[in-house]
Amino acid sequence: MKLEFKKNDLNTAISIVMKAVAVKSPMTVLECILIDATDGKITMTGNDMEFGIETVCDGVILEPGKIALEAKLLSEIVRKLPEDRDTDVSLQSDDYNNAVISCENSVFKIMGIDGNEFSMLPQLDKSHPIAISQITLKNIISKTIFSISANDVNKKMTGEYFEVDGGRLTVTSLDGHRISIRYAELNGNYQAQKAIVPGKSLSELSKILSGDMDDVLLYFSQNHMIFEFNNTIVLTRLIDGDYFQVSKMLSDDYELKILADRRKLLENIERSTIFVRDNDKQPLILNITDEVLEMRINTEIGRMDAKIPIRKTGKDLMIGFNPRFLVDALKNIDDEEVSIYMSIPRSPCFIRNENNYNYMILPVNFNPNSV
Amino acid sequence: MKLEFKKNDLNTAISIVMKAVAVKSPMTVLECILIDATDGKITMTGNDMEFGIETVCDGVILEPGKIALEAKLLSEIVRKLPEDRDTDVSLQSDDYNNAVISCENSVFKIMGIDGNEFSMLPQLDKSHPIAISQITLKNIISKTIFSISANDVNKKMTGEYFEVDGGRLTVTSLDGHRISIRYAELNGNYQAQKAIVPGKSLSELSKILSGDMDDVLLYFSQNHMIFEFNNTIVLTRLIDGDYFQVSKMLSDDYELKILADRRKLLENIERSTIFVRDNDKQPLILNITDEVLEMRINTEIGRMDAKIPIRKTGKDLMIGFNPRFLVDALKNIDDEEVSIYMSIPRSPCFIRNENNYNYMILPVNFNPNSV
Repeated sequence: MKLEFKKNDLNTAISIVMKAVAVKSPMTVLECILIDATDGKITMTGNDMEFGIETVCDGVILEPGKIALEAKLLSEIVRKLPEDRDTDVSLQSDDYNNAVISCENSVFKIMGIDGNEFSMLPQLDKSHPIAISQITLKNIISKTIFSISANDVNKKMTGEYFEVDGGRLTVTSLDGHRISIRYAELNGNYQAQKAIVPGKSLSELSKILSGDMDDVLLYFSQNHMIFEFNNTIVLTRLIDGDYFQVSKMLSDDYELKILADRRKLLENIERSTIFVRDNDKQPLILNITDEVLEMRINTEIGRMDAKIPIRKTGKDLMIGFNPRFLVDALKNIDDEEVSIYMSIPRSPCFIRNENNYNYMILPVNFNPNSV
Repeated sequence: MKLEFKKNDLNTAISIVMKAVAVKSPMTVLECILIDATDGKITMTGNDMEFGIETVCDGVILEPGKIALEAKLLSEIVRKLPEDRDTDVSLQSDDYNNAVISCENSVFKIMGIDGNEFSMLPQLDKSHPIAISQITLKNIISKTIFSISANDVNKKMTGEYFEVDGGRLTVTSLDGHRISIRYAELNGNYQAQKAIVPGKSLSELSKILSGDMDDVLLYFSQNHMIFEFNNTIVLTRLIDGDYFQVSKMLSDDYELKILADRRKLLENIERSTIFVRDNDKQPLILNITDEVLEMRINTEIGRMDAKIPIRKTGKDLMIGFNPRFLVDALKNIDDEEVSIYMSIPRSPCFIRNENNYNYMILPVNFNPNSV
């Protein structure tokens, strides 16, 4: 095999597929990137068997072939080549999988692995794509992924639920204390689809999605899901089983609704987290009256009292929350003003905007006599 | 005590003295900042007993007093106050060391410690200051501190040697494999002084030195050294004993001298470090002939060959080095072209510029037949 690249093209392709390469594996080939130039184009692939990425890299094929090279080593060599983006880099390999990378007056020799030992990504049916802009998908992921569970006692909580219903995509995550839901209108009407996608795959995917309006195509299958964009295919295994019946946990009824400046509310609640150490269960108490929201926390570290103006309809309420959960939700909302719906001290609050999002947070019990 | 500050003044003073506060100590008072407003000005102090910082903070004293407050907590509260730099912050304490910090509609209550329990910095004789610009001192520290030893088996290697001799300051560090020396001309003629200053103190000091030409004053005493600048006093204990006799390890004789483009040389040597893993002793071989410097490394990871043009006087030489040591030195030189002096494969190289620096690096033995 003999290939020629511009440094920048090679660097970009490697950094994309690197995200699917196993960092440490007993199977050396899982720590490799496959470079395949047998088919008239140069394809690079990373695949840790749960999650795989394939991308096409610009370059010239002087002699076809394929080889698997240790990803970390290859990426380090290419990153440290001369800074000029347009420097020419040549990559050659022989029948014994010796690889030679040359650039200006430097020559690097490393051992590769036979490209045929690499596990190719499964070929899936791609007849029913669902299109969404990359920026929208990127946003939806980042604004829900904080409430998946890190603990995989319940595997389904470590993923996000993707559901297509007609013209709408709904993405849901939950961890037993809260639910985060984001909606996106799709351009077109699609047949119903659903899947539980591993959070780890989504967080890697969102790093390589661009921040622009170009589409990404989604393909659902029994055990996998594919995201296709910019000459790149991202494939992830799905989490088995049925997702939680989230609709039963939501409610549109409420006994009071408040409208508050999101930024003011967020800043004040963030300050209260200073007084919460890791295993502390002391809640932030919200005391809601007609035009004022009072916040109070009192832990062994110290005490904070703060208040902000609000607009309220409905009854007064005193209710307690883990302030970090409120911060997570408020940080992930772009609206200047938020609507919060509540009922009684033991029932959840909903920070909601019908078209875009619904964040549910369970309250924390507290003794009203102690505050 | 009752004080008023602009948020930004308070924040700046806290972040300066924080650098001398113990992160975790069995003595809670060592994790505190002392705020002392008994003397017509507001002084803040951090002191972990090895290293201390005292700074004067702008503010209004409505009622004098002093208190010690947990540094981490105080700093978090102040950092999370409204973003506006000019927001007014009030700090009050009562006879029971309850402290109240108020700002806009937020009130924070935390417990402090009696200010009299705080260990004040020792008062030293300040009659013979040595003046140097902050940027010069900052540079000298950063360009030598990489070659102190992290391992304190030999305590003296964990410090830097400061030596004043007439109109010149010399700062030296060494770790058994290499020596880094920086010189600075002083404005004036001073009596001889010397001290071994802990590397940890210097690295914290250099974070708060400004990058401008304002002076910092140095005071040497038996067991301490003081750095005074911008209303701030930094005091460090010294390391006991006599420093190594560095002048005996240096030599002005050489058998060849090369002139090389620093950046080209550095980039090529950096690339060779890709093939060096932590415990690897395989050296980078330099093969120096009249107009070319060839570099070669061959480890179990792979092999690199590279060459750059040089100008040389003297004989040819083949010599091996730990490439990381060469990288460290070359990274800390600003000159576009460097002069390197060598003799035989077993004697050190010197990267030297008479007025500013002298970096000595010991070579590594290698078998010339194996390369």
